[in-house]
Amino acid sequence: MARRKKIYEGKAKILYEGPEPGTFVQYFKDDATAFNAQKKDVIEGKGVLNNRLSEFFMQGLTNIGVPNHFIRRINMREQLIRQVEIIPLEVIVRNFAAGSLSKRLGMEEGTALPRPIVEYSYKNDALGDPMVSEEYVVAFGWANQQDLDDIVSLALRVNDFLSGVFYAVGIKLVDFKIEVGRIWDGDFMRLIVADEISPDSCRLWDVKSGRKLDKDVFRRDLGDLADAYSEVARRLGVLPAQTTHLTKPTLIN
Amino acid sequence: MARRKKIYEGKAKILYEGPEPGTFVQYFKDDATAFNAQKKDVIEGKGVLNNRLSEFFMQGLTNIGVPNHFIRRINMREQLIRQVEIIPLEVIVRNFAAGSLSKRLGMEEGTALPRPIVEYSYKNDALGDPMVSEEYVVAFGWANQQDLDDIVSLALRVNDFLSGVFYAVGIKLVDFKIEVGRIWDGDFMRLIVADEISPDSCRLWDVKSGRKLDKDVFRRDLGDLADAYSEVARRLGVLPAQTTHLTKPTLIN
Ligand SMILES: Nc1ncnc2c1ncn2[C@@H]1O[C@H](COP(=O)(O)OP(=O)(O)O)[C@@H](O)[C@H]1O
Ligand SMILES: Nc1ncnc2c1ncn2[C@@H]1O[C@H](COP(=O)(O)OP(=O)(O)O)[C@@H](O)[C@H]1O
Ligand SMILES: [Mg+2]
Ligand SMILES: [Mg+2]
Repeated sequence: MARRKKIYEGKAKILYEGPEPGTFVQYFKDDATAFNAQKKDVIEGKGVLNNRLSEFFMQGLTNIGVPNHFIRRINMREQLIRQVEIIPLEVIVRNFAAGSLSKRLGMEEGTALPRPIVEYSYKNDALGDPMVSEEYVVAFGWANQQDLDDIVSLALRVNDFLSGVFYAVGIKLVDFKIEVGRIWDGDFMRLIVADEISPDSCRLWDVKSGRKLDKDVFRRDLGDLADAYSEVARRLGVLPAQTTHLTKPTLIN
Repeated sequence: MARRKKIYEGKAKILYEGPEPGTFVQYFKDDATAFNAQKKDVIEGKGVLNNRLSEFFMQGLTNIGVPNHFIRRINMREQLIRQVEIIPLEVIVRNFAAGSLSKRLGMEEGTALPRPIVEYSYKNDALGDPMVSEEYVVAFGWANQQDLDDIVSLALRVNDFLSGVFYAVGIKLVDFKIEVGRIWDGDFMRLIVADEISPDSCRLWDVKSGRKLDKDVFRRDLGDLADAYSEVARRLGVLPAQTTHLTKPTLIN
């Protein structure tokens, strides 16, 4: 593909100008970061896995009519997406207590929540993505109440669908995060799911063993991150054959 | 288990009095019927498969907070369920054209619908389960408008979840049917999913080959029904080991 203009480089992905107006090319890097980029590493093959897995989940959402930015995969590390005006929120859906909720409320990780809880963080690395309530979101004009109602509906539909996907392959969807963006058709605005859905943005526990199959493996030094993500991809029938070619060959002797 | 009082024998299942008030034991028979029971057969192992599969789907719905009648499986053919006051409707959700919709609208089977369509049949064998609109449902007092809103919400959540489950294992959820019933807590009434969710009540097509994995195999004489249902169970990790013991051994010579 011809050289393209870089639009934005983030912690895990790069956005390039797309081939048509209103599109971007999303490139998935192998970089892993945690704790607001205080912890960093390069995990060979992660970008390839997340590109395929995000394609798989977004395509599934398209099938059931949940609008999202995915257009088509271009190659191992890149996909074509619709350009959106990102709402600067991480929209988090939690089914079981974990991570920051467990800390804040002193609730053991894995405790079932009375119902799925949707919460928001203000996307701002300098501030460490602080949690915000709907009051803040509306007061600061990031979204209005109608937008928030739509965002909650989208988030809960994604939760029902992904819960089904992971249930079918023996994985518990503990929580996940999506981003949502605006697209315009003249004066008409719609909210769609953007960014990525991958083991970087979900907490995934094997139902039988409790083994973590998500970025917590990296955050908490629990083993090989690419192994964990490959296991998710393998169970979902994504990358059935190529799995062994994802990383460089390892010398045995 | 002690002898129990038979409450109702239907085409595919028998309901017995349960061990506690407000419960029934649901027994899954091997009987297969189609076209309002004009076509009949006994398919060895079908009852066992549907008992396990309905358990699997209902348990998944419980996990995501969709209320349903399933309490626990008792044995290979029986499960304990909450007794409900059945609303006499088949609540059908369609994602792709098939069956009666294809016939009525002259639409090729498999055509994607613009969005999921929820429709109702009046459960009455003597009349051949005629299709009814919401107007009929409300006029005849089977459900009021608030009930119907709740039924549609339930049906669409089940659709999102099941679409995810089947997407994960390479199966397309073409359509399915649920029944909904009322449970009471004093004056307080709730609607919950009842009856069964199984390949008897869904249309399931293999994504790659288009092979049918549901009751159409029986309706249209497309092969071995128990084989098709076993394939669904195998992909979902239900009955991983016992599959070979479901039917009597077949003499090879
Ligand atoms: N469809 C889209 N249109 C525009 N921006 C998007 C779209 N999808 C994701 N983004 C943005 O692209 C960036 C993705 O790169 P990432 O490495 O995740 O960045 P960050 O480190 O800011 O989280 C994010 O800032 C995200 O908000
Ligand atoms: N939880 C429940 N409580 C009471 N009745 C139920 C429940 N679940 C299903 N039923 C009813 O039990 C019967 C199940 O047996 P089935 O063989 O499917 O009957 P049918 O031939 O009438 O469809 C159906 O009539 C269904 O409406
Ligand atoms: Mg990001
Ligand atoms: Mg029935």
